[in-house]
Amino acid sequence: MEYGQAIFYRGGSDQSFLCVSAVCSFLEIRMKKIQIYDTTLRDGSQGEDISFSVDDKLHIARKLDELGIDYIEGGWPGSNFKDMAFFKRVSELGLKHARVAAFGSTAHPKNSKVEDDNNIQALIESGTPVVTIFGKSWDLHVKVALGISLERNLELIGDSVAYLRSLGKEVIYDAEHFFDGLKADREYALATLKAAEQAGAGTIVLCDTNGGTLTEEIRDCLRSAVERLKTPIGIHTHNDSDMAVANSVIAIRHGAVHVQGTFNSYGERCGNANLCSIIPNIELKLGMRAIGQEKLRNLTEVSHYVSEIANMHHRQDFPFVGKSAFAHKGGIHVSAVMKEPLAYEHIPPETVGNERRVLISELSGKSNVLYKAERMGLQLDKASPGAQAVVNKLKEMEHYGYQFEGAEASFEILFNKLMNEHSEFFDLDGFRVITERKGSNSSTSEAVIKLRVDGTEEHTAAEGVGPVSALDHALRKSLTTFFPCIKDIRLTDYKVRVLNAKGATDAKVRVLIETSDGHESWGTVGVSENLIEASWLALVDSITYKLKKEYGFKNKEARERVKG
Amino acid sequence: MEYGQAIFYRGGSDQSFLCVSAVCSFLEIRMKKIQIYDTTLRDGSQGEDISFSVDDKLHIARKLDELGIDYIEGGWPGSNFKDMAFFKRVSELGLKHARVAAFGSTAHPKNSKVEDDNNIQALIESGTPVVTIFGKSWDLHVKVALGISLERNLELIGDSVAYLRSLGKEVIYDAEHFFDGLKADREYALATLKAAEQAGAGTIVLCDTNGGTLTEEIRDCLRSAVERLKTPIGIHTHNDSDMAVANSVIAIRHGAVHVQGTFNSYGERCGNANLCSIIPNIELKLGMRAIGQEKLRNLTEVSHYVSEIANMHHRQDFPFVGKSAFAHKGGIHVSAVMKEPLAYEHIPPETVGNERRVLISELSGKSNVLYKAERMGLQLDKASPGAQAVVNKLKEMEHYGYQFEGAEASFEILFNKLMNEHSEFFDLDGFRVITERKGSNSSTSEAVIKLRVDGTEEHTAAEGVGPVSALDHALRKSLTTFFPCIKDIRLTDYKVRVLNAKGATDAKVRVLIETSDGHESWGTVGVSENLIEASWLALVDSITYKLKKEYGFKNKEARERVKG
Repeated sequence: MEYGQAIFYRGGSDQSFLCVSAVCSFLEIRMKKIQIYDTTLRDGSQGEDISFSVDDKLHIARKLDELGIDYIEGGWPGSNFKDMAFFKRVSELGLKHARVAAFGSTAHPKNSKVEDDNNIQALIESGTPVVTIFGKSWDLHVKVALGISLERNLELIGDSVAYLRSLGKEVIYDAEHFFDGLKADREYALATLKAAEQAGAGTIVLCDTNGGTLTEEIRDCLRSAVERLKTPIGIHTHNDSDMAVANSVIAIRHGAVHVQGTFNSYGERCGNANLCSIIPNIELKLGMRAIGQEKLRNLTEVSHYVSEIANMHHRQDFPFVGKSAFAHKGGIHVSAVMKEPLAYEHIPPETVGNERRVLISELSGKSNVLYKAERMGLQLDKASPGAQAVVNKLKEMEHYGYQFEGAEASFEILFNKLMNEHSEFFDLDGFRVITERKGSNSSTSEAVIKLRVDGTEEHTAAEGVGPVSALDHALRKSLTTFFPCIKDIRLTDYKVRVLNAKGATDAKVRVLIETSDGHESWGTVGVSENLIEASWLALVDSITYKLKKEYGFKNKEARERVKG
Repeated sequence: MEYGQAIFYRGGSDQSFLCVSAVCSFLEIRMKKIQIYDTTLRDGSQGEDISFSVDDKLHIARKLDELGIDYIEGGWPGSNFKDMAFFKRVSELGLKHARVAAFGSTAHPKNSKVEDDNNIQALIESGTPVVTIFGKSWDLHVKVALGISLERNLELIGDSVAYLRSLGKEVIYDAEHFFDGLKADREYALATLKAAEQAGAGTIVLCDTNGGTLTEEIRDCLRSAVERLKTPIGIHTHNDSDMAVANSVIAIRHGAVHVQGTFNSYGERCGNANLCSIIPNIELKLGMRAIGQEKLRNLTEVSHYVSEIANMHHRQDFPFVGKSAFAHKGGIHVSAVMKEPLAYEHIPPETVGNERRVLISELSGKSNVLYKAERMGLQLDKASPGAQAVVNKLKEMEHYGYQFEGAEASFEILFNKLMNEHSEFFDLDGFRVITERKGSNSSTSEAVIKLRVDGTEEHTAAEGVGPVSALDHALRKSLTTFFPCIKDIRLTDYKVRVLNAKGATDAKVRVLIETSDGHESWGTVGVSENLIEASWLALVDSITYKLKKEYGFKNKEARERVKG
């Protein structure tokens, strides 16, 4: 490729990117569209320390759909019972854009007929419109892992694809180890693709399963496939050589129209190609279309959301979406970036929903807070002293470890407090939570609480399966007589995040609680070095939000009228 | 480049790598040598949360020297007072291989003579054999950041390099923003390099300062420089587009003979190119020489060492050197990797001093368990009823919520229990943990514990910042009199994962603890609906592992002898 061609896709890294961005919304419809295939819920869950419940998966699927992801691979129903439960429930979500895919392998060689294969049957049972099956491209794998002849493998690929097609499924064929396979036996590797094509695969995806392939090798091998096939080609890379994103991007530049990856690069070993980097590279550097520039502005938020659900620390240095991605520390950089952002930023941070931060002078944040307040329908005049107070307090709390993503109810209560629009519904005199274990019996927990509502004291106790549960029960019990609507609410989610893990059991923890009253759900947050205290703070916000919603009034008389 | 050429560097990713590795030591001397230039101590320290003391820097410099790094950039003496102290002391270290470099900019335009420039004088004062200076290649920067004419900038580059050369320094010239500069004004960008060459720069390094350049752009721009200059060319990339390593590797393939990066990719924003990935790619994929294959075996250790000194968590998913880099979770992968490691590993982990790990998870089959037991030196016959019992128990525990990834110590203890090779070091009579809050004060926690060691009762209490911390303190306090070695251990990590989040505060939690005694680290796990109970289980395993390691005996008499 000559340099002249390279100019085309430089987009994000020189003066032209501002213009590119401005005209993009008009041009988008004419831009080349790359299909985005997310496998966070399947390949991502292979990552060490990653473990999703069915509910976690449903939450993520909904969020990815909203972001405009084209395909969501939900799991491997033949290998994991939990995944089947996901497929049963995902159809009730009413996804607007994404097509859901179930993942599995070509039929096992022991079955003479594909329809006898349990794995294939599980794929069909999952009821998804899309089925993704992987097969072997590398002769080594055919011989060693499957222990069958090269011809039999071609048959298995063809028969499996054809059978699923005959049932009306969209079939995506993942060519496992394609790059290693091509290097070992070029013609055989290409023949496996041809078998999938002839059987009717809708997309053929070249996988660098071991992640060992270098960028220019990816390009050259991919070209061989593009030249040989009519079927649209996809790319699936792993990060073992630290070049998964570059490898996906070069494949797209040279003809791949479909890319598979995960959010935050979750995945086995060194992870999969990070869609949070690939999507903006497609949109801002390649001049092609992935999810569209409008939805691109939600990318940072979704990346954080997925890490919260996965209960993984969000890497600060993540390209595009990390907290440090546009943070400037060096003195020279800071003064230059203020004169001319382009001087030290490859793209404008807001294009991916991130923000510039200047680490030495803490200038950032106000617009972020205003944006957040506005989205919640809270009134805040940008120029008012109140606005600055809110920003300062939030900065202080974020520095301490608070995070209001997924805890909008706590944000709203805090906002009201800072604007002097809040008063407490009850006063705590104190609580005591006792967890006890006798010999080899398991532990029991009990909480005692004393509080006052409009001067009336309530002193009560309750048990729970653990200390937080006991405290939760005692708090509700003591308040229900005053505020009967508390009976309607239940906690639907409880998450604990250790913030400075190196502090071990002395570390600070952040507790996130989700509450529902059957009509609405809301999230609250508490941070403390003491887990019980952090949980208490989130519990109190959770109940306060419900009471405000129900009674809305600050003084006793008003509440009395409602109760009467 | 044709595919035929790509074959040359495939090294690590197909069958030929074993042979390559075997003959490498003989061939190394004839292989093309790439200079490795580390800037962890300078550019790396620009990373958010990174802050090195002078002693930290000296420790790292010594370690990098032992690893065979060619250049160590120690700091920017003109901008940071601490850096000057480093240069004074580093000369006393007696480094064996590395040349130390001081970093700074070309002279400031306000000085009519280079020798009047404070920054240049600071570079000279630092007394290093090598001086690295950066200058502007991008017309935008010359005009906006420096506010001078393009000609004056060429003069500054030439004069600064020439002056330092006249004092006998080896001068490395860093062309800041070279890639953006070339795209904006090709001839001017190349003219800045020419100015440095004519003044006697020993190496000219092309910097992708904003990290926005795509892989093939890097190659094309670099080729322009290689064609125009006689001076050896280097490459310096940042990770803002998530392709810093790929960009460095492609530059080396196309003529760069010097590469700059940091350990663990520390650096401003999204970090610098990671030398821990670049070095093995050079050695194992490109068939060139960086630090030599013998020293390459120390890479994983040095990467961990640098993260310890930087007080940063060592990313598990780091390519080559991360704890998960060769960890296998899926059942299919595991049985295949045992038959033929090459099937799922792009390089043999031991070449970089890392190791294969087989994770025990809900996806695992019998082969995972057997492999793991074997690695731990635990005897288990595959066909024995014991093996099936272990597998069944593990599956049952995993179903309950246990996960032994990162909790190998708990796995070993469990294994011993199932094989009847375990007895307890102490018997618990009971514990009680109380968390209390009075009014608006924050919560306090206290634990009381009663246990017996060989019949001797210990009844004691301790406080903590939270309930788990209090329990941890009380447990250690009560055991230290019997087992003094407990003093040596400390908890280094504490993680909480809520398993069925929908159960909210009644949900089951999994606690993971990491413990270290300064020589070894080990992970333990506990699961319960009661967080205190789950933490207790993990704490007991943590201490039991240490005691087994120290005393190894099951009965009182044997322990008495050791203590005696």
